[in-house]
Amino acid sequence: MSTSEIDAVRKIVEDWADAVSRGDRRGILAHHANDVLMYDFPNEVRGLDAYDDTWDFFFENRRGDITFAPSNVEATASEQVAFVTCNMHCDGTSAGPLDFRLTVGLEKLDGKWLIKHEHHSLATQDDRFIDDHNRAAAGG
Amino acid sequence: MSTSEIDAVRKIVEDWADAVSRGDRRGILAHHANDVLMYDFPNEVRGLDAYDDTWDFFFENRRGDITFAPSNVEATASEQVAFVTCNMHCDGTSAGPLDFRLTVGLEKLDGKWLIKHEHHSLATQDDRFIDDHNRAAAGG
Repeated sequence: MSTSEIDAVRKIVEDWADAVSRGDRRGILAHHANDVLMYDFPNEVRGLDAYDDTWDFFFENRRGDITFAPSNVEATASEQVAFVTCNMHCDGTSAGPLDFRLTVGLEKLDGKWLIKHEHHSLATQDDRFIDDHNRAAAGG
Repeated sequence: MSTSEIDAVRKIVEDWADAVSRGDRRGILAHHANDVLMYDFPNEVRGLDAYDDTWDFFFENRRGDITFAPSNVEATASEQVAFVTCNMHCDGTSAGPLDFRLTVGLEKLDGKWLIKHEHHSLATQDDRFIDDHNRAAAGG
């Protein structure tokens, strides 16, 4: 583990989230690989253009200011490859307030960290996946 | 990127999936870190004991043989940190047939690759997240 690289990749994810909050479309894309693979909520997105397109929908029909705030950010990093996990609170879009889980995978190419992968997901409420143990843990 | 490490972490994920298919509870845990963080379908799980507990529910009320088959496995690896993405097809549990997305984060500790993070998710069908563009892409 490299402490300076941990700080570097945390900052990339935090700056990206800040760019989302500001609606800064150029900032959102500032550290992404051309072949980025995103597991988005409803589907799978490959490539920077397709990734960029998803933000059209995100910013449509805004309801005031956007909040896109990571918490519990944890990073694991070597000098070349890293992954970051966090919880994300989002508000201000047409989807209403949301809390979701995010994993980001990064690789350093030509000395620059790039996001190669994002996995966004909502915890399911589907009874098929909830036993008494985790129902209790979820306070349900 | 290290080709030999890419092969090593792919094999860990594939062997883990194979252990799930066989119901080999010891094999499932063979390469996990004590502080593993899993974003499971309904909730967040931290630590090896809690992770192990989730497989109790998985293996309850089986409907014949378990299938737990990764496809589109892609790995990014340095000598110390790696992440792996794949699609997973699961069948034979009480939840019925499922296709989900999986991201795995690994770190090499004392010369041994360990899984520090798993992110499992189902694509949502929620209309809030589906615009005309990705509805068409999803064939809907």
